[in-house]
Amino acid sequence: MPPVHVQGMRVYWEDTDAGGVVFYADYLKFFERARTEWLRRLGYSQEAMRTSANGPSAAMFVVTDTQVKYLRPARLDDWIEVDVQVMRRGSASLDIRQQALRGPELLAVGSIRIGCVDPTTLRPRRIPDDLQQALDMPGPENATTS
Amino acid sequence: MPPVHVQGMRVYWEDTDAGGVVFYADYLKFFERARTEWLRRLGYSQEAMRTSANGPSAAMFVVTDTQVKYLRPARLDDWIEVDVQVMRRGSASLDIRQQALRGPELLAVGSIRIGCVDPTTLRPRRIPDDLQQALDMPGPENATTS
Amino acid sequence: MPPVHVQGMRVYWEDTDAGGVVFYADYLKFFERARTEWLRRLGYSQEAMRTSANGPSAAMFVVTDTQVKYLRPARLDDWIEVDVQVMRRGSASLDIRQQALRGPELLAVGSIRIGCVDPTTLRPRRIPDDLQQALDMPGPENATTS
Amino acid sequence: MPPVHVQGMRVYWEDTDAGGVVFYADYLKFFERARTEWLRRLGYSQEAMRTSANGPSAAMFVVTDTQVKYLRPARLDDWIEVDVQVMRRGSASLDIRQQALRGPELLAVGSIRIGCVDPTTLRPRRIPDDLQQALDMPGPENATTS
Repeated sequence: MPPVHVQGMRVYWEDTDAGGVVFYADYLKFFERARTEWLRRLGYSQEAMRTSANGPSAAMFVVTDTQVKYLRPARLDDWIEVDVQVMRRGSASLDIRQQALRGPELLAVGSIRIGCVDPTTLRPRRIPDDLQQALDMPGPENATTS
Repeated sequence: MPPVHVQGMRVYWEDTDAGGVVFYADYLKFFERARTEWLRRLGYSQEAMRTSANGPSAAMFVVTDTQVKYLRPARLDDWIEVDVQVMRRGSASLDIRQQALRGPELLAVGSIRIGCVDPTTLRPRRIPDDLQQALDMPGPENATTS
Repeated sequence: MPPVHVQGMRVYWEDTDAGGVVFYADYLKFFERARTEWLRRLGYSQEAMRTSANGPSAAMFVVTDTQVKYLRPARLDDWIEVDVQVMRRGSASLDIRQQALRGPELLAVGSIRIGCVDPTTLRPRRIPDDLQQALDMPGPENATTS
Repeated sequence: MPPVHVQGMRVYWEDTDAGGVVFYADYLKFFERARTEWLRRLGYSQEAMRTSANGPSAAMFVVTDTQVKYLRPARLDDWIEVDVQVMRRGSASLDIRQQALRGPELLAVGSIRIGCVDPTTLRPRRIPDDLQQALDMPGPENATTS
């Protein structure tokens, strides 16, 4: 199953630690960047969703579970590509699988569960219908953006 | 003039970069931690200020200017102390001077201007009266907290 | 089984995101701070281990797997306590279970696998014998440090 | 004087704080990303410079002074452009002026001094000759990269 999105990004000083490699917590940031650009390509700005004046459609995604396996270290100046695969779609949550690659090398793989909540109460809510419909659209087979 | 607050803190992996030393942007975080603990000791929780249901007293500090001079690198596991000195008090802003020290060694020195704003509009507002009064209280000559 | 270490820490601006709560990736930083202080209490500075001039004893811990479940959001100014439990000890790796609590409320729980590597080659190596022995020491039943 | 480089980048969740805007320390990261891409366009990978096996040419840039003025807040999902202007070139340091813009709006402006050091000793050293020559090359009048 091809990913629905692939996002390229550079490793900068801010991402490294004294071990000379990317700090492991930063892969969660890398994965999040790719999910944000994927939602944007579907037409969704999370800032617009969050601050929507229209109460019923205000929605925010929160991360409820993360699993990451670190396979190879990335280093300063590396160009990495992070993909997005939707493994499960519920009415109020999504299970996403994500890989970080440097060329053909798999650096890290993650499983991220995101839940849809009301931005004010932080209580779970259904994913807005129009976003559910956008998720039905087939993803490009190889959707690299830089 | 003695500082009004001194805050101890440890350097962790998250703070370091591939050069083996603390990433320079993180000194702004260290300075901010010390300012937060200083305000807390004066009785002010910034979260309570920000989310105050009472419109007229809702207030948030934003940073409008920073100057930092980096003198010596800090490293993983170092214990550093960050102080707070109030250089100027205006009706809606404060100029703070801050030093990061490792024992007697000066690592970095910063000048930070913070402005008081309304948390919703982000427009400047007067520093709440009770905080102005708390700022009049003399600081301890050596107020180390860990 | 009581934790071998409990580390208190404050939530600062740097840890929050536009949702008004702690950014989920930062719990990996919180967990790491608690592990670092636990190793320090056992007598181990990771910086000293990493930069040891003595080749055979130079060692560095790297994180190879993380699982985190996020239960309740933490907010600016919250005081949280992060504990450390050793679930499995191998010759070259450790499985650690960690919880972040705010008073009695469980905020997040994580399983972290750390592996011991040579700091230069990043290849796996045995955990140094003296650290293995230190790990045999019983932990305090309630080892809060702030 | 036109900038020698302009780097586009997106604001992600990781960059925001509970005030709903970009955390001020993160502009130093944004500025750094633009400098890194500028050096890369000149043919310089900082990772290669740092880890050069060739002792005499091993070099690392460290930041020694930063001044940032924050004018307007950036928000989640904003696209910003960060430019690079070389204000002064010394034998062992550079003074860089950088702006962060959102369309025509100036968000932040910074003055960053970077010094060239030996990566092992962290002592100042001359900027390598070939990089000095590359700095002589005229910059494109409008060098946007995304």
